[in-house]
Amino acid sequence: MAKALNVGVILFENFELLDVFGPLEMLGMYPETFRLHMLGQHAGAVRSAQGPRVAVDSTFDQPREYQILLVPGGAGTRTEVSNQALLNWLSNHAENAEYVMSVCTGSALLAASGLLEGRRATTNKNAFQWVTGFGDRVTWIKQARWIVDGNYFTSSGVSAGIDMSLGLIEEILDRPSAEQAAIWAEYEWNRDPRRDPFASIAGLID
Amino acid sequence: MAKALNVGVILFENFELLDVFGPLEMLGMYPETFRLHMLGQHAGAVRSAQGPRVAVDSTFDQPREYQILLVPGGAGTRTEVSNQALLNWLSNHAENAEYVMSVCTGSALLAASGLLEGRRATTNKNAFQWVTGFGDRVTWIKQARWIVDGNYFTSSGVSAGIDMSLGLIEEILDRPSAEQAAIWAEYEWNRDPRRDPFASIAGLID
Repeated sequence: MAKALNVGVILFENFELLDVFGPLEMLGMYPETFRLHMLGQHAGAVRSAQGPRVAVDSTFDQPREYQILLVPGGAGTRTEVSNQALLNWLSNHAENAEYVMSVCTGSALLAASGLLEGRRATTNKNAFQWVTGFGDRVTWIKQARWIVDGNYFTSSGVSAGIDMSLGLIEEILDRPSAEQAAIWAEYEWNRDPRRDPFASIAGLID
Repeated sequence: MAKALNVGVILFENFELLDVFGPLEMLGMYPETFRLHMLGQHAGAVRSAQGPRVAVDSTFDQPREYQILLVPGGAGTRTEVSNQALLNWLSNHAENAEYVMSVCTGSALLAASGLLEGRRATTNKNAFQWVTGFGDRVTWIKQARWIVDGNYFTSSGVSAGIDMSLGLIEEILDRPSAEQAAIWAEYEWNRDPRRDPFASIAGLID
C-alpha cells in the first residue's frame, strides 16, 4: 500500500468539467492513496465553464502540503494566466509537490508560472498556438496524449486527462491498479502516451 | 438550431462523478440547446462518492419542466432505491420528459420507479445482478455500451455515459454535432452502442 497523498485540485471560474472529474474518477478509485481536496482562491463554490458549481474544500491561504497538484484547463485559463495570486500559489506549492499535473490548457498556467521552463510538455490541440505562447524555454510536443517529464505530467485536451491519470496511478501504485481502475469505470484506456489522433485532426502534424 | 431543452441532473449523496460530468462535458458543448440544471432533494451541496461536492441549482419541490432527465449511478444508488421521494419525483417528471437517461447503476433507480417496465435497458457490468433485481418486466441487455428504447437511453458503467450522451446529441442535433463535440473534447467516441468489451471482462457473456 502506497502512503496517502494529498491531491490539490485547482478550481477557478470557468474550469472545464471533464478536465477535473475525469482524473478524479480514476484517482478516486484508490481513496487510501489519493486524498482529494478541491482548492479555490476564495471560499464557496466555483462555477465551471459548463455551468455546474463545485464546492471549495480549502482556500489558497489555508496551509496544507499537497503531494499532487492537478491544474485543469477550460475557458477560464484565458483569465487565470493573468491571476498573479494563482500563479504564485502554483509556483510556491509545485516546489514541494511530488507530482504536478495539468490537463488541456491548464499547462498555460504552469507555463505562465515558470514551472515548465526547460521541460517537455503538451496541451490541448485546438488551443496549441495560444498555450505555447507562454514560457520561454518550454519544449511543446504537438503529438502526444500526455507527456511525462520528471515529476511533471501534462496532457492533451480534456479527455486525455483520464488517460494521463491512469498513467499516474501506474507510476504511483502499479500497472494492474491502473488497469483495474479503467475496468471499474468501463473505460478503454489509451495506454500509449504517444498515441494521439487529435494532433493531425487539428492540423498540427501532416 | 434545435430548441432549448432543460436538462435535469439528479444528484444524491455518493453519486459517481464521471456518470454526471462525462455527459455534461458533452452536452455542455451546445449550451443553446442543453440548459444544465443540477437537482437535489435538498438545497445546498451534494457529496459525490469520490468526495467532491456539487452545488444544487434547484430542489425537487421547485416547479420546472425538464425535457431531459439524467440519472447517474454510484454507490449512493444502493440507498436511493429506497428513497420514495426521489422515486416519486422521477416517475412524475419522466412522464413529461422528452428523453430519460441513466448512466451505470442509475438504471436501478429508473427500474425501481417502474419506469423501465416493458423496456430494454442496460447497466453497469459489475453490478449487473443487483441492478437487474429491480423492475418486473425489464429486458436487461448484458452486452451493450448503451441501449435506446423509445425515449429512454440507458448506458453501461461510468464512462459509457459519455458515449451515450454523444448518441443523444446525434439524436437531438445531428451526427456532425456529435462528432464535433468528441473532437473538441479530444475523445475517441465508441459510436457503436452494441460494442461493449466489458460484458465479457465481467463474465456476463462467454
